[in-house]
Amino acid sequence: MPRSSLGLRIPEGMHDILPNELALQDQAEDSVLDLFKAWAYQKIVTPTLEYGACIEPVEEEGDAFFKLFDRQGHVLVLRPELTTPIARMVSTRMRGGNLPLRLCYSADVYRYSKSHKQEFRQVGVELVGSASPLADAEVIALACEALGRISVRGFQINLGHMGIFTGIMDELGVSETFRINYQEKLARKDFVGIERLVKECGLEGRVQEILLKLPHLHGTEEMLGQVLEWSQEPILIKAVEVLRQVYHYLRDFGVQDKVSLDLGILRGFSYYTGAVFEGYVPGVGFPIVEGGRYDSLYGEFGDDYPATGFAINLKAIIEQLPPSQADLAEIFIYGQDTSKVITETQRLRQEGKKVEMSLVPLNQGEAEELATRKGFKDVYCVK
Amino acid sequence: MPRSSLGLRIPEGMHDILPNELALQDQAEDSVLDLFKAWAYQKIVTPTLEYGACIEPVEEEGDAFFKLFDRQGHVLVLRPELTTPIARMVSTRMRGGNLPLRLCYSADVYRYSKSHKQEFRQVGVELVGSASPLADAEVIALACEALGRISVRGFQINLGHMGIFTGIMDELGVSETFRINYQEKLARKDFVGIERLVKECGLEGRVQEILLKLPHLHGTEEMLGQVLEWSQEPILIKAVEVLRQVYHYLRDFGVQDKVSLDLGILRGFSYYTGAVFEGYVPGVGFPIVEGGRYDSLYGEFGDDYPATGFAINLKAIIEQLPPSQADLAEIFIYGQDTSKVITETQRLRQEGKKVEMSLVPLNQGEAEELATRKGFKDVYCVK
Repeated sequence: MPRSSLGLRIPEGMHDILPNELALQDQAEDSVLDLFKAWAYQKIVTPTLEYGACIEPVEEEGDAFFKLFDRQGHVLVLRPELTTPIARMVSTRMRGGNLPLRLCYSADVYRYSKSHKQEFRQVGVELVGSASPLADAEVIALACEALGRISVRGFQINLGHMGIFTGIMDELGVSETFRINYQEKLARKDFVGIERLVKECGLEGRVQEILLKLPHLHGTEEMLGQVLEWSQEPILIKAVEVLRQVYHYLRDFGVQDKVSLDLGILRGFSYYTGAVFEGYVPGVGFPIVEGGRYDSLYGEFGDDYPATGFAINLKAIIEQLPPSQADLAEIFIYGQDTSKVITETQRLRQEGKKVEMSLVPLNQGEAEELATRKGFKDVYCVK
Repeated sequence: MPRSSLGLRIPEGMHDILPNELALQDQAEDSVLDLFKAWAYQKIVTPTLEYGACIEPVEEEGDAFFKLFDRQGHVLVLRPELTTPIARMVSTRMRGGNLPLRLCYSADVYRYSKSHKQEFRQVGVELVGSASPLADAEVIALACEALGRISVRGFQINLGHMGIFTGIMDELGVSETFRINYQEKLARKDFVGIERLVKECGLEGRVQEILLKLPHLHGTEEMLGQVLEWSQEPILIKAVEVLRQVYHYLRDFGVQDKVSLDLGILRGFSYYTGAVFEGYVPGVGFPIVEGGRYDSLYGEFGDDYPATGFAINLKAIIEQLPPSQADLAEIFIYGQDTSKVITETQRLRQEGKKVEMSLVPLNQGEAEELATRKGFKDVYCVK
């Protein structure tokens, strides 16, 4: 039956991937997965559909998830990320494994979004069962090496810690309403909004000063001393200690020059608890890597393992790369005797050649014209 | 928040794929895709979600699709197969390309089913723009070679033609109700049901005889003569001619011994119009390859191209393979001085070694015990 105009389109934010773009994506994906494996991460995959009860135990209005009902009436969610599904999988199917567990994945994720694609390929890792700052450093270093392999125009990782924000809010004793407002603007890096909010609230001078400076604390280690002058809250002292240690390890990994401290980082997913980081490349207005420590998520599924990890938005990076050409067959083969053409084609393929066979008998002129148009190097006539 | 028992489970028919199984699947997938590329097929992918208006222009009650509404209220369908989405893609984004187009894919598809997984990986090809029996033979031969690469215990392809069934029904002049009933039972190979149906309907002797024999016409070329004795309907004569030609070409491709003619084949998807085939492996009660010619589908999207192709249910084949072991890292490295351990680990990785680094300082006994438990070949202490 003829399709309506809707039936010729694809849903908003979805996309077809044509040969040249897919070749680029596959190549980047293979290269990153090889790296993950060289760092002892094992590849796994979780299903596209999860129960809503797994992804979002209390349903929220206005979330960005694709949802449907199964035939028993349960809410299903197209996975919006892999960290939570992997926590479910490890907790139910890999219990009693040798910790720490190193897992990696490459999978499509789905979110309603104005700025992103709504379906996009993520590659990432989870390092489960270690609370050590060395684990944080390992995944950040791995993210740097992965980006180094696939991003042609340079990248930048910003590193922060959830405890910095919490410690400073505790120190300043601001109201819960103010805190939520400020946090929301800080997460979006809405500096203008922050300035207006802070100035309108009639807070005392020192509090105002700190709240206006925090979003701009970005650079190297010296900043950490500044923060300790503001507050000696235990949660903040701990966060500073962890960041110092991670930062030192990053030097040992040889990637410190790729990483800046950024004390105003707040990650979107609510599960982050410790060191957090995000990565940027020129030309993309949102982080192409997001990661960090999430030490309470596993407890929600049973065993209380500390964990850290990251996900790279492969799709967004691919779109920045110069176009490439998908592999073409090498030889175009034709002739008048179809049986002979088939036999010869099969012989060449057994020698490892990539061969396209003409499906109609062609004369020489036709064959050469077609082969040129299709970009073949060799044309071969079977007599 | 702690998960309910539902939040710890995965939806019915969905599955996690753990490292060993995924290594097997990836290996099989890579091997088949390499083969497709050697036969000049280019890899593409369509989105997970399509408009219902694309997949199923008239909505059917009781179909096996996963559906949801987008935020504009349109029905979205998780792709149940790739042939229709690829027809949409070619018709809207690759128009005016060089025909014939050879495309291949590897993607997950989604269907409610009691017997299958509800999410499973398919690899397949579409050959668009040729009506030649040589095109049919090419894709069948390619399916045979693909199965030969990944199926360890032998496989069997059955080849039929939609015109055989149509021609015989026209010849016999049975009622529309009978035809639908018979067709439905034939598609399920419900031989007992067919016998009951045919005998209960009080049809004349010759008609009964043919209807009881048709489901069992399975074997080599001689059968085709039998069918022509029954009827000289033009549609049937054409079907027999095509099958003879395809079968001869399969000999040239060197795969004829893998293929039996089976005149009772009816494929489930309604778009098939010509030669159709299905493949079986021991231990799986449903076809692990389904394919055939569909010459009217493209017309529904605009340009009226003939086309043929197949899809392999990779998941079902993987489950028949003996388990394998995912790649492990080669070296386990540990020591008392973390900075030195990191530096040495990075040095070994640059040499191309796969290295797992201890995240805690271990003594020799602890390290060796851990490395043995994890199955490492080499343990290396950094002094």
